[in-house]
Amino acid sequence: MSRAQDLFPTRLERKLGMFERLDPVVHTPEERLSDGPLTADQVREFDDRGFLFFESFFDKSEMEKFIQELQEYEEDEDLKLSEGTILEPGKEEIRSIFGIHEISKRFDRLTRDPHLLKIVRQLLDSEVYIHQSRINYKPGFKGKGFNWHSDFETWHSEDGMPRMRCLSCSIVMTDNNEFNGPLMLIPGSHKYFIPCVGRTPEDNYKESLKIQDLGVPDGASLTHLMNENAIEAPKGPAGSLIIFECNTLHGSNANMSCWPRSNLFFVYNSVHNTLTEPFCGNKPRPQFLANRTNWDPLKPVND
Amino acid sequence: MSRAQDLFPTRLERKLGMFERLDPVVHTPEERLSDGPLTADQVREFDDRGFLFFESFFDKSEMEKFIQELQEYEEDEDLKLSEGTILEPGKEEIRSIFGIHEISKRFDRLTRDPHLLKIVRQLLDSEVYIHQSRINYKPGFKGKGFNWHSDFETWHSEDGMPRMRCLSCSIVMTDNNEFNGPLMLIPGSHKYFIPCVGRTPEDNYKESLKIQDLGVPDGASLTHLMNENAIEAPKGPAGSLIIFECNTLHGSNANMSCWPRSNLFFVYNSVHNTLTEPFCGNKPRPQFLANRTNWDPLKPVND
Repeated sequence: MSRAQDLFPTRLERKLGMFERLDPVVHTPEERLSDGPLTADQVREFDDRGFLFFESFFDKSEMEKFIQELQEYEEDEDLKLSEGTILEPGKEEIRSIFGIHEISKRFDRLTRDPHLLKIVRQLLDSEVYIHQSRINYKPGFKGKGFNWHSDFETWHSEDGMPRMRCLSCSIVMTDNNEFNGPLMLIPGSHKYFIPCVGRTPEDNYKESLKIQDLGVPDGASLTHLMNENAIEAPKGPAGSLIIFECNTLHGSNANMSCWPRSNLFFVYNSVHNTLTEPFCGNKPRPQFLANRTNWDPLKPVND
Repeated sequence: MSRAQDLFPTRLERKLGMFERLDPVVHTPEERLSDGPLTADQVREFDDRGFLFFESFFDKSEMEKFIQELQEYEEDEDLKLSEGTILEPGKEEIRSIFGIHEISKRFDRLTRDPHLLKIVRQLLDSEVYIHQSRINYKPGFKGKGFNWHSDFETWHSEDGMPRMRCLSCSIVMTDNNEFNGPLMLIPGSHKYFIPCVGRTPEDNYKESLKIQDLGVPDGASLTHLMNENAIEAPKGPAGSLIIFECNTLHGSNANMSCWPRSNLFFVYNSVHNTLTEPFCGNKPRPQFLANRTNWDPLKPVND
């Protein structure tokens, strides 16, 4: 594949310094910032910090049926053998299930929750589709962490996502507290692209989804950003929601508590930002990681 | 070695349930509880929860020379080869330096700080000596965690410490925050002894000081204690102090931040509780882990 220029070069043989992002964070023009459902202040906060936290966005009781379904999946031996299911390194525990909205009607409907969808459309100023969905289990005592990374860095290099016009909604399925490995984010980090060192091997995802080594920003860049804006780990009961921009650096620590931490992730991409060939030059990753077959705009359920 | 009965059986081939501790936590009789320097309330808190936290016990500026000395050790190649220096698994970073008070006059004097020593003597109602000292470095991005454990469980089985009349003072040498792997404790856990499963191999310490597998309580017991009293992770600036009982369950997570977390530990044992042969039946561990040669009562410096 030959391309004129890769705007977000990464997985390089030599280090290249971080640079300011080229794309807007909030795609909504100023005059429509207050059109809702988010207030103009909330939109500006997302623009500035790269994420928004909504404690109890859904009521805990609304989550019960979802949680029950997830518990059933956790004990489903067939599902453990499925390609979209990632196990903990060397272990029997499920780390992630990808394509959860394709496995379950209930979760599929949740991707089209009217309130959620309106917020996403407001921020991206566009119709959207699901690029990826997953549940990250993090069982008590056993759940390992996720190293610092920008999702966009991977999705661009390994999946061919052209630009930054995409975001993740993470719905907390179990109470997240200080000790069960909550999502950590670096506010403001979404404003920079950090090229990472190291060529991407074919089928890298088979390792990277267990332990991520490639696509982890260098220590100097991370230190710079952490010293500038610190780290935040929003905590709250089941039903809480974190919306974060596709280039916001995030990670999480191991779960050393007895309390499981399951977080659901829906990745919404703008229909104007559909996938091309992977920029790393490898063959595309499987559909369960990067949707290449259904880019129809999502329609809100019950509307 | 034959003994009538081991009061704290552990490292067993079969699981044995947890049981209430046999020894008092606070050894001071009720009528002398207010004799200071701790108030009777503080003593009761220690008795009930198994630890006390003193934010900025020492002034940050008092710590500067200590911190500088620790930074010098971190870059000392000779020290990396010393038996009392433990490196991170497969890495070049220093994880711990044992016997810090024997390496450094400055740290030796700190073990005999009059205020600190008075508190320790009050809680143990006894003259004391240093059973072990160490610095745990936890460098930014690289520092790994410590699994849940009771120090007493190891000191009893591997070092022959007869009873629970011992405590640790942990002095925070760098600011401890939510993200650099602060010490976590389970309040109230010191009231129970949890026998652990698994025979102790000879020279177990060569592995256990890097990654602890043996001597980690079972999940059911940990879950029970965490659900009863949760987990706490005291945070504060350099110079803060955590005093915790030798049987209080504690651990810490990896340091995923850029901010190093170095904690100093002085273990004070009662002179009425000096070491015997290890209860696991192995040969004693090295002197840098378990002092068997100098049980003279510590005298306060500058008094």
